[in-house]
Amino acid sequence: HETVCIFGTGDFGRSLGLKMLQCGYSIVFGSRNPHMSSLLPSGAEVLSYSEAAQKSDVIIITVHREHYDFLTELIEVLNGKILVDVSNNLKINQYPESNAEYLAQLVPGARVVKAFNTISAWALQSGALDASRQVFVCGNDSKAKQRVMDIVRTLGLTPLDQGSLMAAKEIENYPLQLFPLWKFPFYLSAVLCAFLFFYCVIREVIYPYVHEKKDSTFRMAISIPNRVFPIAALTLLALVYLPGVIAAILQLYRGTKYRRFPDWLDHWMLCRKQLGLIALGFAFLHVIYTLVIPIRYYVRWMSRNMTITQATTKKENPFSTSTAWLNDSYISLGILGFFLFVLLGITSLPSVSNTVNWREFRFVQSKLGYLTLILCTAHTLVYGGKRFLSPSILRWYLPSAYVIALIIPCTVLVSKFILILPCIDRTLTRIRQGWE
Amino acid sequence: HETVCIFGTGDFGRSLGLKMLQCGYSIVFGSRNPHMSSLLPSGAEVLSYSEAAQKSDVIIITVHREHYDFLTELIEVLNGKILVDVSNNLKINQYPESNAEYLAQLVPGARVVKAFNTISAWALQSGALDASRQVFVCGNDSKAKQRVMDIVRTLGLTPLDQGSLMAAKEIENYPLQLFPLWKFPFYLSAVLCAFLFFYCVIREVIYPYVHEKKDSTFRMAISIPNRVFPIAALTLLALVYLPGVIAAILQLYRGTKYRRFPDWLDHWMLCRKQLGLIALGFAFLHVIYTLVIPIRYYVRWMSRNMTITQATTKKENPFSTSTAWLNDSYISLGILGFFLFVLLGITSLPSVSNTVNWREFRFVQSKLGYLTLILCTAHTLVYGGKRFLSPSILRWYLPSAYVIALIIPCTVLVSKFILILPCIDRTLTRIRQGWE
Amino acid sequence: HETVCIFGTGDFGRSLGLKMLQCGYSIVFGSRNPHMSSLLPSGAEVLSYSEAAQKSDVIIITVHREHYDFLTELIEVLNGKILVDVSNNLKINQYPESNAEYLAQLVPGARVVKAFNTISAWALQSGALDASRQVFVCGNDSKAKQRVMDIVRTLGLTPLDQGSLMAAKEIENYPLQLFPLWKFPFYLSAVLCAFLFFYCVIREVIYPYVHEKKDSTFRMAISIPNRVFPIAALTLLALVYLPGVIAAILQLYRGTKYRRFPDWLDHWMLCRKQLGLIALGFAFLHVIYTLVIPIRYYVRWMSRNMTITQATTKKENPFSTSTAWLNDSYISLGILGFFLFVLLGITSLPSVSNTVNWREFRFVQSKLGYLTLILCTAHTLVYGGKRFLSPSILRWYLPSAYVIALIIPCTVLVSKFILILPCIDRTLTRIRQGWE
Ligand SMILES: Cc1cc2nc3c(=O)[nH]c(=O)nc-3n(C[C@H](O)[C@H](O)[C@H](O)COP(=O)(O)OP(=O)(O)OC[C@H]3O[C@@H](n4cnc5c(N)ncnc54)[C@H](O)[C@@H]3O)c2cc1C
Ligand SMILES: Cc1cc2nc3c(=O)[nH]c(=O)nc-3n(C[C@H](O)[C@H](O)[C@H](O)COP(=O)(O)OP(=O)(O)OC[C@H]3O[C@@H](n4cnc5c(N)ncnc54)[C@H](O)[C@@H]3O)c2cc1C
Ligand SMILES: Cc1cc2nc3c(=O)[nH]c(=O)nc-3n(C[C@H](O)[C@H](O)[C@H](O)COP(=O)(O)OP(=O)(O)OC[C@H]3O[C@@H](n4cnc5c(N)ncnc54)[C@H](O)[C@@H]3O)c2cc1C
Ligand SMILES: NC(=O)c1ccc[n+]([C@@H]2O[C@H](COP(=O)([O-])OP(=O)(O)OC[C@H]3O[C@@H](n4cnc5c(N)ncnc54)[C@H](OP(=O)(O)O)[C@@H]3O)[C@@H](O)[C@H]2O)c1
Ligand SMILES: NC(=O)c1ccc[n+]([C@@H]2O[C@H](COP(=O)([O-])OP(=O)(O)OC[C@H]3O[C@@H](n4cnc5c(N)ncnc54)[C@H](OP(=O)(O)O)[C@@H]3O)[C@@H](O)[C@H]2O)c1
Ligand SMILES: NC(=O)c1ccc[n+]([C@@H]2O[C@H](COP(=O)([O-])OP(=O)(O)OC[C@H]3O[C@@H](n4cnc5c(N)ncnc54)[C@H](OP(=O)(O)O)[C@@H]3O)[C@@H](O)[C@H]2O)c1
Ligand SMILES: CCCCCCCCCCCCCCCC(=O)OC[C@H](COP(=O)(O)O)OC(=O)CCCCCCCCCCCCCCC
Ligand SMILES: CCCCCCCCCCCCCCCC(=O)OC[C@H](COP(=O)(O)O)OC(=O)CCCCCCCCCCCCCCC
Ligand SMILES: CCCCCCCCCCCCCCCC(=O)OC[C@H](COP(=O)(O)O)OC(=O)CCCCCCCCCCCCCCC
Ligand code: HEM
Ligand code: HEM
Ligand code: HEM
Repeated sequence: HETVCIFGTGDFGRSLGLKMLQCGYSIVFGSRNPHMSSLLPSGAEVLSYSEAAQKSDVIIITVHREHYDFLTELIEVLNGKILVDVSNNLKINQYPESNAEYLAQLVPGARVVKAFNTISAWALQSGALDASRQVFVCGNDSKAKQRVMDIVRTLGLTPLDQGSLMAAKEIENYPLQLFPLWKFPFYLSAVLCAFLFFYCVIREVIYPYVHEKKDSTFRMAISIPNRVFPIAALTLLALVYLPGVIAAILQLYRGTKYRRFPDWLDHWMLCRKQLGLIALGFAFLHVIYTLVIPIRYYVRWMSRNMTITQATTKKENPFSTSTAWLNDSYISLGILGFFLFVLLGITSLPSVSNTVNWREFRFVQSKLGYLTLILCTAHTLVYGGKRFLSPSILRWYLPSAYVIALIIPCTVLVSKFILILPCIDRTLTRIRQGWE
Repeated sequence: HETVCIFGTGDFGRSLGLKMLQCGYSIVFGSRNPHMSSLLPSGAEVLSYSEAAQKSDVIIITVHREHYDFLTELIEVLNGKILVDVSNNLKINQYPESNAEYLAQLVPGARVVKAFNTISAWALQSGALDASRQVFVCGNDSKAKQRVMDIVRTLGLTPLDQGSLMAAKEIENYPLQLFPLWKFPFYLSAVLCAFLFFYCVIREVIYPYVHEKKDSTFRMAISIPNRVFPIAALTLLALVYLPGVIAAILQLYRGTKYRRFPDWLDHWMLCRKQLGLIALGFAFLHVIYTLVIPIRYYVRWMSRNMTITQATTKKENPFSTSTAWLNDSYISLGILGFFLFVLLGITSLPSVSNTVNWREFRFVQSKLGYLTLILCTAHTLVYGGKRFLSPSILRWYLPSAYVIALIIPCTVLVSKFILILPCIDRTLTRIRQGWE
Repeated sequence: HETVCIFGTGDFGRSLGLKMLQCGYSIVFGSRNPHMSSLLPSGAEVLSYSEAAQKSDVIIITVHREHYDFLTELIEVLNGKILVDVSNNLKINQYPESNAEYLAQLVPGARVVKAFNTISAWALQSGALDASRQVFVCGNDSKAKQRVMDIVRTLGLTPLDQGSLMAAKEIENYPLQLFPLWKFPFYLSAVLCAFLFFYCVIREVIYPYVHEKKDSTFRMAISIPNRVFPIAALTLLALVYLPGVIAAILQLYRGTKYRRFPDWLDHWMLCRKQLGLIALGFAFLHVIYTLVIPIRYYVRWMSRNMTITQATTKKENPFSTSTAWLNDSYISLGILGFFLFVLLGITSLPSVSNTVNWREFRFVQSKLGYLTLILCTAHTLVYGGKRFLSPSILRWYLPSAYVIALIIPCTVLVSKFILILPCIDRTLTRIRQGWE
C-alpha cells in the first residue's frame, strides 16, 4: 500500500483521493484547516500541509495556481519530492509560463510532473469517464514521471508521455481547445451554405415574386434547404478528394516525394476526415428532407390539384418508360451513394478504424470513397438530365444550383481518371516508392 | 519462456492454455486423468495435479468452486505459490464469501489473485473477444498481482487493478450483471409508454367507438405508436436536462457546492446518458413511423377519397401559404432536432467520447443538447399550432397527448432560461468555482 | 534521454524519428550520404551507418529488405545490438523466409525484433493514426523485445507480444490482408443477390414481356432491388443463427461438448458477425428503397391514374379495416425488426462491445437477435398474407420471391423452438456445463 499525499481538499482533491483509495493507495490530505474538512473519503487522513508532505514523496497539488504561494513556505519539506501539478487555467495562454513551470520555479528542489489536468473531478468521482481517459504526463525527471505514470495506469487511465516540462504549456492548453481541426471545415461549410442559400433564394423566391408576384417564401423551410444541403454535401465530398489529386500532380511535377507540400495543402489533407464527416451530415439531412417530401402540405396539395385538373380536363397522361428509368435510376444512385457514404462514416469511428489495417483502411477510404463520389455525381447528373443545358433553366442568367454543384466533383473525377492512366500511374508509383 | 501451470483441462483451461502458448508461454496442465485428456493444445504438457504444481509458481485454477476440495491435499506443494482464481458463480451472492477468498482460506500459504473471470472461454479461443477485453485483477500480495497483470497484458488484454482480495466479491458479481445502469431508465420509459398508450387508446379508439361506433382499432399498429414514441422521446429528453437544473437550484439555495446532493439526484444524474439514449431510440422510431405514413393503405385510401370528393363536389381548395409555412417549419424543426439528437448519440459512443476533451464533450452534450431540446419542443409547439388551446380537441376532458408532452420540456427550458440570466449565472459560477 | 539509432532516412525513418524526438528520445540517423539528407527532423544527428550504429544499442532498420546487404559489412558493430525490423513486402509470401528472419541470418550476432510494420509513415507523421494503433512485436530475445515494447508504449501505441521470431511471417502478412473474415460472407451474399436478381427479373420483367409485351425493364432500378435486398437480409440473418442451432443438435447427438466441431461449422460460427453486418446493410438498403416509394414517378403516376379511374367510373372503394390492420401491422413489425437490427449493429461496434460484459453481450446478440429474426420473419409472413399460397402468384411455376425468403428463417425458428423445450434444454445445459 503505497502512500500518496494530496494537497487541497477541494473538488478535484477529494475525487482523486477517493479514486486512489479504491485502487489500493493510502491517502494523506494536506489542508489549511485539517479539522474542518468535510465530505472527505473515509479512510483518508487529513493533516496540515507541512505534516502531510512528510508522509509521502509523491504530492499531488490540487490547488489553483493563484494560491500556489503557500508552497514557498514548505520549500524544505518539499525538497526532492515529486510534485504533481494538475492545474488548469481559464483561458489559453493566460500566464507567460505554464503552471507546472511556475511551480518548478517556486519549489526549485522538487521534481515537478504535470499530469491529470484533462480529467474532470466529476467524471472521476462518478466513474462516468465519458470524456477522454488519456492522461498527458510530462516532466524533466524521468524516474518521477515513471512513478506518476504508474499511478495513472493503476487508476485505469492511459498515461501518454509528452516529454520534458516544456510540453506543459501545450498540455495545459489542451483542455481549453474546442475542436481545433473542425474549425476550418466548419467555417468553410458555413460560408458555402450561406452562399447557396442566397443563390437559391434569389432564383426561387425573389425571381418568382418579381416576375409573377408569387409568394414562395415558404420554400425557405424545406425546398431550399433540400437544395443547399445536397449541394454542400457533394462539394465537400469532392473537396475531400481534391487535395490527393493536387498532391499527386505536385509529386509528378517535382519528380520526388522528398519535398514538403505547401502548408495549405498539408493542412487541407489533415482535415479531410472532418470535411468528409460534415459532408456526411449534410447528405444525411438531404436524405431526410427528401424522404419527408410526400408528407408536406404543399406537395400533397399540388398532387391533389394536378390529379383533379387531369381528371376534369380529361387530358391523357401516358406512362413514359424513359422518365421512369431516369427517375428510378437517379434515386437508386443516390441511395447507393448514401449507403457507401455511411460506410465511410462508420469506418472513421475511432474504434473501427483501430481494428482494420492500413491497407483495409485505405481500401475503404480511398477506393470506396471515390466510388461514393462517382455515385453521388452520377446521381446529380442524371437528376439534372435533359434540363441540364436547356436555357430555360436560367433565371436572371443564373443557372440551376446543381449545375454549380457539379463543377468541383467533375474536375476531381476527370483529374483522377487521368492520373490512373497506366503510364502516369507507373511514374507516380515509382516516385512514391522512393525509387527516383 | 516462462512456465505457467493450469489446473483443470476443461473449456476454460484449454482455451487459456492455447492462448498463452501462442503468446510465448510454456504451459503445464494439471488434471485428474493426465492420460485421458483430449483436445489439449499441442505443445502443452499434462501431469497430475501435484506434479504439475511443482513446475511453476503461477498456477491458474480453472476448476469450478464446487470442486476446490482436492486442493486441500496439495497444501504443501502450493505453499508460497501464486494461485489465480478465475471462477464464476451462477447467481449473484450465491455463497457468503467470494470464491477467491474461499480459495485463500482453503490454501492459506498461497498468494491468491482473482483474475480472468470476465473473459469467456469461447471468445478466448476463437479470438473474437467481442465482449470486454478488461480483466479485473485483485489480490492481497502486490507482487503476485503484478505477475498476473503482466500475463494479462502479454495476452493482449487490459488488466485493471481493483485493490485487495476484498474486491473479489464485486469482481465475481460483475459478469452476472445485466445492464444495471439501464434498469431505471428502462422501467421508467416502459411505464411512460404504457400510460401514453392507454391514454391514446382511450382518446382515439374507445372515444370514436362510443360516439360514432367507428372501428379504429387498426390505429393501434402505427398511428398510436407514432404518438406514444415521440412524446416519450421528448419527455425523456427533458428528463435528461431536468436534474442539472435541480442541481443548480439546490446549489444556489445552499450557497455551496461542498455538500452532497440527495441520493435520488445523484442516481438520476448518473443515468442521464441512458435516459438520453433511450430517448434517441424513441425519436428514431418516431422518425421511421413518420416516414412510412405515405405508404400506409389507410393514408392512401384517405388521400384518394378526398381527391375524389373534391373533384366531384367541385369545391375550391385554395393554397394557404401560412399552412405551408407552419407545416414545413414544424417538419424542418423536427429534422434539425433529430440530426442533433443523432450527433449526441454518436458522441456518446465510448470511442468517440474518449477522443474529445472535457470541454468539447460538455459543449456537445450540454450546449448542443439544450439546442436539441429547444428544437424538439419547438417542433411539437408548432405542430400543435392553433389547435393547441381550442376546446374542440378535448375528448372526455382529455387534452391531446402532445399537450401533456410539452409540460416537462417547457418547465426545463424556462428554468434554464432563468438560471442563465447574468445575475444568477454569476452567483452560480462563483459557487461552482469554489470561491464562496 | 535514451538514444536510439535509425538506419535509413526515407519516409518511414524520418517520420518515426520525428515522433520519437517528440516523445523525448535522442535520435541518431544512419545514412548512405549523411550530408545530403534533407527534411530530417531538427534535433536529430545524421552519421554514416557504421558511426551511427555505435551510438546506441537499439537500431531501427527503416530500409527495404532488398537493400539489407549493406548490413553484412557492419556485422561487427552490430554484434549484440537490438535490431528492429520494420519492413513490409508487396505481396503475401513474396520470399521464402520472413524479412526479420532474413535479417537475423544476415547479422547472426544481433538480437532481431520485428515491430512497427503495421504503422504507416504518413499516419505517424501527421498524427492521424486512424488505422490501427496496435504494434505487433515478436523476437527470440525477451529482454530485447521488452525494450522495443517500452518504446512502442512511450510513443502512445499499443504493443502486442506475438512470441518468437517465427511469428514474423504472420506479422508481415498482416498489413497485406484485405478483410479476410469478410471474404466468405461477401461472396455468399454476392451469389445470393445475383440469383435473386435473375429470379426476379424472370418473374417481373421477362414474364410480363413475353405474356403482355409490356416493357417493365425500369423495375430493375428500384422495384427489383427492393425485393432482392430484403430477401438477402432475411436469409443472411437466418444464416447467422443457423450454425448455433446446428451446433446444439451436434452436441445433443454427441452427448458431449468436448469434441471439436467440424471445420466448416467452426468457420461459419466465426463469421456470423460479418454475416450479420452484411444483413444489416441490406436491411438498411431495403428500408431506404421502401421509404422512397412515394417519390417515384411510377408510383405517383399509378396512384394518380387509379384515382382518376375511380373518379370517372364512380366505383365504390370501401375502407377495409382488415386490410388496414394487415398493412399497418406488417409495416410496424418491419420497423421494430429494423430497430433491433440497428441495435445489434451498434453493440457490435468494438468500443461498445468492449464496455459490456459477456452476459450482456450474449443477451443482446442472442436474445434480441432471435427477437429480430422473429420480427423480420413475421413482417414477411404478414406481408405475404393471403396471397401466400394462392396459385395465382405462380409465374412459370415460380413462386413469389418472398416465399423462398421464408424457408431458412422458418427452419431456424422452428428448430430453435424445439431446442428450448424444457426437456431438451435441460439436457443441453448439462452438456454445456461439462457435467456429462
Ligand atoms: C464520410 C467520410 C469519412 C472520412 N473519414 C476519414 C478518416 O476517418 N480518416 C481519414 O484520414 N480520412 C477520412 N476521410 C477522408 C478521405 O476518405 C481519406 O483521406 C482518403 O484516404 C483520401 O483518399 P485519396 O485517395 O484522395 O488520398 P490518398 O490515397 O491518401 O493520397 C493522397 C495523397 O497523399 C499522398 N500519399 C499517400 N500515400 C503516400 C505515400 N505512401 N507516400 C507518399 N505520399 C503519399 C499522395 O500524395 C497522395 O496523392 C473521410 C471521408 C469521408 C467522406
Ligand atoms: C442522445 C444522448 C446521449 C447522451 N450521452 C451522454 C453520455 O454519453 N454521457 C453523459 O454523461 N451524458 C450523456 N447524455 C446526457 C446529457 O447530455 C449530459 O449529461 C449533459 O452533460 C447534461 O448537461 P447539463 O447542462 O444538464 O448538465 P451539466 O452541465 O453537467 O450540469 C449538471 C449539474 O452538474 C453539476 N456540475 C457540473 N459541473 C460541475 C462542477 N464543475 N462543479 C460542481 N458541480 C457541477 C451542477 O450542479 C450542474 O447543474 C446524453 C443525452 C442524450 C440525449
Ligand atoms: C447486426 C448483427 C451484428 C452482429 N454482431 C456480432 C458481433 O459483434 N459479434 C459476434 O460474435 N456476433 C455478432 N453477430 C452474430 C450473432 O448475433 C451472435 O453470434 C450470436 O451470439 C449468435 O447467437 P446464438 O444464440 O445463435 O449463438 P450462441 O448462443 O453463441 O450459441 C451458439 C452455439 O455456440 C456454442 N456455445 C455457446 N456457448 C457455449 C458454451 N459456453 N459452451 C459450449 N458451447 C457453447 C453452442 O454450441 C451454441 O449452440 C451479429 C449479428 C447481427 C445480425
Ligand atoms: N475540478 C475539476 O474538474 C478539475 C479538473 C482538472 C484539474 N483541476 C485543477 O485542480 C485544482 C483544484 O481544483 P478544484 O476544482 O478542486 O478547486 P476547489 O474546489 O476550489 O479546491 C481548491 C482547494 O485548494 C485549497 N487551497 C489552498 N490554498 C488556498 C487558498 N489560498 N484559497 C483557496 N483554496 C486554497 C483548498 O483546500 P483546503 O481548504 O483543504 O486548503 C481548496 O479546497 C485546480 O488547479 C484545477 O485547475 C480541476
Ligand atoms: N467457460 C467459461 O467461459 C468461463 C469463463 C470465465 C471463468 N470460467 C471459470 O472457469 C472454471 C472452469 O470452467 P470450465 O467452463 O472450463 O468448466 P469445465 O469445462 O466443466 O471444466 C472443469 C474442469 O475442472 C476439472 N476438475 C477438477 N476436479 C473436478 C471435479 N471434481 N469434477 C469435475 N471437474 C473437475 C476438470 O479437469 P480434469 O478432468 O483435467 O481434472 C474439468 O475439466 C469455472 O470456475 C468457471 O467459472 C469459465
Ligand atoms: N512507408 C511506410 O508507410 C512504411 C510503413 C511500414 C513499414 N515500412 C518499411 O520501412 C522501410 C522503409 O520504407 P520507406 O517508405 O521509408 O522507404 P524509402 O522512403 O524508400 O526509404 C528507404 C531508405 O533506405 C535507405 N537505403 C539504404 N540502402 C539503400 C539502397 N541501396 N537503396 C535505396 N535506399 C537505401 C535510404 O536512406 P539513406 O539514403 O539515408 O541511406 C532510403 O531513404 C521498408 O522496409 C518498408 O517496408 C514503411
Ligand atoms: C446518421 C448518419 C450520420 C448522421 C450524422 C453524421 C455525422 C456527421 C458528423 C459527425 C460528427 C462527429 C463529431 C465527433 C466529434 C469529434 O471531434 O470526434 C473526433 C473523433 C476522432 O478524431 P481523431 O481520431 O481524428 O482524433 O472523430 C470521430 O470520432 C468521428 C466519428 C464519426 C462518426 C460518424 C458516424 C457515422 C455513423 C453512421 C451511422 C449513420 C447511419 C445513418 C442512417 C440514416
Ligand atoms: C439509428 C439511430 C439510433 C437508433 C437507435 C438508437 C440507439 C438507442 C439505444 C442505444 C443503446 C446502446 C446499447 C448499448 C449497450 C450498453 O450498455 O452500452 C454501454 C455503453 C457504454 O457505457 P459506459 O461508457 O457508460 O460504461 O454505452 C454505449 O456505448 C452507448 C452507445 C450509444 C450508441 C448510440 C449510437 C447512435 C448511433 C447513431 C447513428 C444513428 C443514425 C440514425 C440515422 C437515422
Ligand atoms: C446506417 C445503418 C447501417 C448501415 C450500414 C450498415 C453497415 C453494414 C456494414 C458495416 C460494415 C462495417 C465495416 C467495418 C470494417 C471492419 O472490418 O471492421 C472490423 C470491425 C471489428 O472487427 P473485430 O472486432 O471482429 O476484429 O468490425 C466492426 O467494427 C463492425 C462495425 C459495425 C458497425 C455497425 C454500425 C451500425 C451503425 C448503426 C447505425 C445505423 C443507423 C441506421 C439508421 C437508419
Ligand atoms: C438516399 C439517398 C438519396 C436520395 C433518395 C436522393 C434523392 C434526391 C432527390 C429526390 C433529389 C431531387 C430533389 C428535388 O427535386 O428538389 C435529389 C437531388 C440531389 N441530390 Fe440526392 N438523394 C440521395 C442521396 C444523395 C447524396 C448522398 C448526395 C451527395 C452527396 C446527393 C446529392 C444531390 C444533389 C446535389 C441534388 C441536386 C439538388 C438540387 O439542385 O435540387 N443525393 N436527390
Ligand atoms: C426527422 C425528424 C422528424 C420528423 C420528420 C417529424 C415529423 C413529425 C410529424 C409529421 C408529426 C405529426 C404526426 C402526426 O400527424 O400524427 C410529428 C409529431 C410529433 N413529433 Fe416529430 N418529427 C421529427 C422529429 C422529432 C423529434 C426528434 C422529436 C422529439 C424528441 C419529435 C417529437 C414530436 C412530438 C412530441 C410530436 C407530437 C405527437 C402527437 O401528439 O401526435 N419529433 N412529428
Ligand atoms: C423500417 C423498416 C421496414 C419497413 C418500413 C418495411 C417495409 C416493407 C414493405 C413496404 C414491403 C413491401 C415491398 C413491396 O411492396 O415490394 C416489405 C417487404 C419485405 N420486407 Fe420489409 N420493411 C422493413 C424492414 C424489414 C427488415 C428489417 C427485413 C428483414 C431483414 C424486411 C424484410 C422484408 C422482406 C423479406 C420483404 C418481402 C420482399 C418481397 O418479396 O417483395 N423488412 N417491407
